[in-house]
Amino acid sequence: MPFTRISMHQGKSPNYVKAVSDSLHQALVDAFEVPADDRFQVIHQLAPGELVFDPHYMGGPRSTDFILFQVNAGRLRSAEVKKAFYRRLVDLLGQRPGVRAEDVMVTIQTNQAEDWSFSSGRALIDEIG
Amino acid sequence: MPFTRISMHQGKSPNYVKAVSDSLHQALVDAFEVPADDRFQVIHQLAPGELVFDPHYMGGPRSTDFILFQVNAGRLRSAEVKKAFYRRLVDLLGQRPGVRAEDVMVTIQTNQAEDWSFSSGRALIDEIG
Amino acid sequence: MPFTRISMHQGKSPNYVKAVSDSLHQALVDAFEVPADDRFQVIHQLAPGELVFDPHYMGGPRSTDFILFQVNAGRLRSAEVKKAFYRRLVDLLGQRPGVRAEDVMVTIQTNQAEDWSFSSGRALIDEIG
Repeated sequence: MPFTRISMHQGKSPNYVKAVSDSLHQALVDAFEVPADDRFQVIHQLAPGELVFDPHYMGGPRSTDFILFQVNAGRLRSAEVKKAFYRRLVDLLGQRPGVRAEDVMVTIQTNQAEDWSFSSGRALIDEIG
Repeated sequence: MPFTRISMHQGKSPNYVKAVSDSLHQALVDAFEVPADDRFQVIHQLAPGELVFDPHYMGGPRSTDFILFQVNAGRLRSAEVKKAFYRRLVDLLGQRPGVRAEDVMVTIQTNQAEDWSFSSGRALIDEIG
Repeated sequence: MPFTRISMHQGKSPNYVKAVSDSLHQALVDAFEVPADDRFQVIHQLAPGELVFDPHYMGGPRSTDFILFQVNAGRLRSAEVKKAFYRRLVDLLGQRPGVRAEDVMVTIQTNQAEDWSFSSGRALIDEIG
């Protein structure tokens, strides 16, 4: 944990997609208290008409480069940590692959350690004691 | 917020998909206390075998036109509001694009305002004060 | 409920995908207190680069056969029930279609009965009284 589902339009290069993945992960490590090797993501690349967003609601203007990050976290973080993560994410995405800050949207869902099994049918709560 | 992930089979026309998107959004505005320009959706169109549903559990009979709406809301609504939204959604989808009521399933996940950043690394809680 | 979103790589046979779906459902019925006909799943088959996972974090080694199960449950289960479900899932997937236990990851999100409408605009809480 966390696990993040990333939604963006089709048509970007593999390098661009990889840079989105890398920048998200680095922002989680830098600002969301995530270990460096705790990296789990799905990148959903959508056709025109499948990714629907208002260009101006609470920010923007958003372009077709819009990316939505849905982060599933395994424990609560403070509002301050969340805010630092939002800022760090847009900073890093602006550097690589060069996503405009206006095109970055994030939502976080939180569950508990007992809701995770990383591997082999073992509960995380039995791993971490 | 909200953000909705819509799961349905491939093979519908762009107009049909657009009408599903429009009817969902209108139901959220009409019955779920959502602003008119607060519109964020992903529409996932699945191949045969990728969308699995029981035809009769707690309703139906469901057909291959089955649509699942997974709504992520940023604050709690009352059970009455949720119920009115469910009703409004099937009403509107029945009109456009003509989805049978039996084929409409909804589930809602709720988080908090501090879990959203709409744009530019700004936390929603700093926008709305 | 529950509804499960399954994320795995493209390239498996329809029989393999069906066996993943069947084994998940059987594990939910056997160990997660789910009725036999309460079956709702989306299977998302991803291209290389779209399913990102660390091969060793908290388990593994994970291979390209890695599968992530995101279960949305409509009521709380105990930690013991969750743990039994994790174990049963890897047991059944190991039998059919033959997924290595190291390649199975699970995360659970929980909401409430009032957050579900299975069909026809009716709230589940009005169905079950």
